Amino acid sequence: MNIALTVSYLGSAFHGWQIQPNKPSVQEVLQNCLQQIFNQPIVLHGSGRTDAGVSALGQVANFHVNQSDVNCYRLQQRLNAMLPNTVRVLKCEEVPQEFHARFSVKKKTYAYHFYQSPVAIPYYDTFATQMKQPFNLEVLKTNLQMVVGTHDFSSFCASNTQTENKVRQIYSAQLEQHGEVFSVVITGNGFLYNMVRILMGTLFDIALGKINQTVLQILEQKDRTKAGKTASQTGLVLVEVCYN
Amino acid sequence: MNIALTVSYLGSAFHGWQIQPNKPSVQEVLQNCLQQIFNQPIVLHGSGRTDAGVSALGQVANFHVNQSDVNCYRLQQRLNAMLPNTVRVLKCEEVPQEFHARFSVKKKTYAYHFYQSPVAIPYYDTFATQMKQPFNLEVLKTNLQMVVGTHDFSSFCASNTQTENKVRQIYSAQLEQHGEVFSVVITGNGFLYNMVRILMGTLFDIALGKINQTVLQILEQKDRTKAGKTASQTGLVLVEVCYN
Repeated sequence: MNIALTVSYLGSAFHGWQIQPNKPSVQEVLQNCLQQIFNQPIVLHGSGRTDAGVSALGQVANFHVNQSDVNCYRLQQRLNAMLPNTVRVLKCEEVPQEFHARFSVKKKTYAYHFYQSPVAIPYYDTFATQMKQPFNLEVLKTNLQMVVGTHDFSSFCASNTQTENKVRQIYSAQLEQHGEVFSVVITGNGFLYNMVRILMGTLFDIALGKINQTVLQILEQKDRTKAGKTASQTGLVLVEVCYN
Repeated sequence: MNIALTVSYLGSAFHGWQIQPNKPSVQEVLQNCLQQIFNQPIVLHGSGRTDAGVSALGQVANFHVNQSDVNCYRLQQRLNAMLPNTVRVLKCEEVPQEFHARFSVKKKTYAYHFYQSPVAIPYYDTFATQMKQPFNLEVLKTNLQMVVGTHDFSSFCASNTQTENKVRQIYSAQLEQHGEVFSVVITGNGFLYNMVRILMGTLFDIALGKINQTVLQILEQKDRTKAGKTASQTGLVLVEVCYN
């Protein structure tokens, strides 16, 4: 059987999604629970890694298990009873044999939360990044819109990335405001490593007047050094992963 | 000099605002810093206590200090350098001698965040309360509106409260929705002990069909036993305290 899990986790409790030696990861705690339940080696494939500190509302992962009669409802209950309360399985379902949480992705949505204040606001710091300096909101909005469409995102990709094809399609990119907290919500067919964080760092630098190019101009140069800093992982959350 | 501080803190890091033996409180960490800076006994008066686990965006507190030349900007910087990063002083200003953070309050705003899901969502659990069962949103909204105006809130007050006058005026009460998270935002001239949490617990029970009376009917009976449970402290945040 091929089983898919939809998972929510609190980024601050883990060193990211991916298994690493001597550091707690979401993949490891889930995989360990599954191996205990099924008493066989299990390989869990996530839709993609999330960095240390990045939370998820709806990460998706799948695994194959050599067993023909898995009760998905009971499996979800058992996992949630075993997992620390910083990870929860929101959905558990049987999927076709060929389903792969990473290769079958159709679209993903990320949100990035931030607030502007010269002094850090502890209540916001758990889920949003502080911008110390006042910035031009209209400039940020205008430049955010420029990523919508199909572009080569080489400028917005960690320079050590091995992915060859850096063309991605962004379906929508919106700025929302709830009180003092701003949220960029961005949906695309895929995201390169650190892409959202580099985009946010660049938008911040443009909106602060520290970079005098537009996002479109930076995209066209396909050069990571033209973009801004990688924004803090605090503020980033994987909202949703969609398949067919 | 009489000095007022506007303070933000993360509720989960403290056992509430008020000083208690052997438990970390916001009042204690602030007061200790002030006493160290001024090298004299300082009594810090908050606008009101917040319970263990309750956060604040804009709690206000004042203290008198026997010194005539306090540089408020430098004091704010020094406090923020000494405080743990779960508390921050957002504003520091000299106020008239007669100003008292509790007795001079004109209005206060609280927010209460919650979400509905049969499974806990770790990302939301840091700032919102989970409602496991589906509820009637329209019924919740209608009943929330009933608290607006001047009422005797005896039914919505912890039974051990010593305050005699239980009449409070609620200026506004709104339900907002951001994605899956709902927020009740309520402003009034004052709030009794546990009033917002009892109101929320009652609204939940009414919206779940567990209580068959309206908020107005419960208000009229002036009887704590007619209202619902005290909702969890997670979800509650003191947003703002206003003075003249």
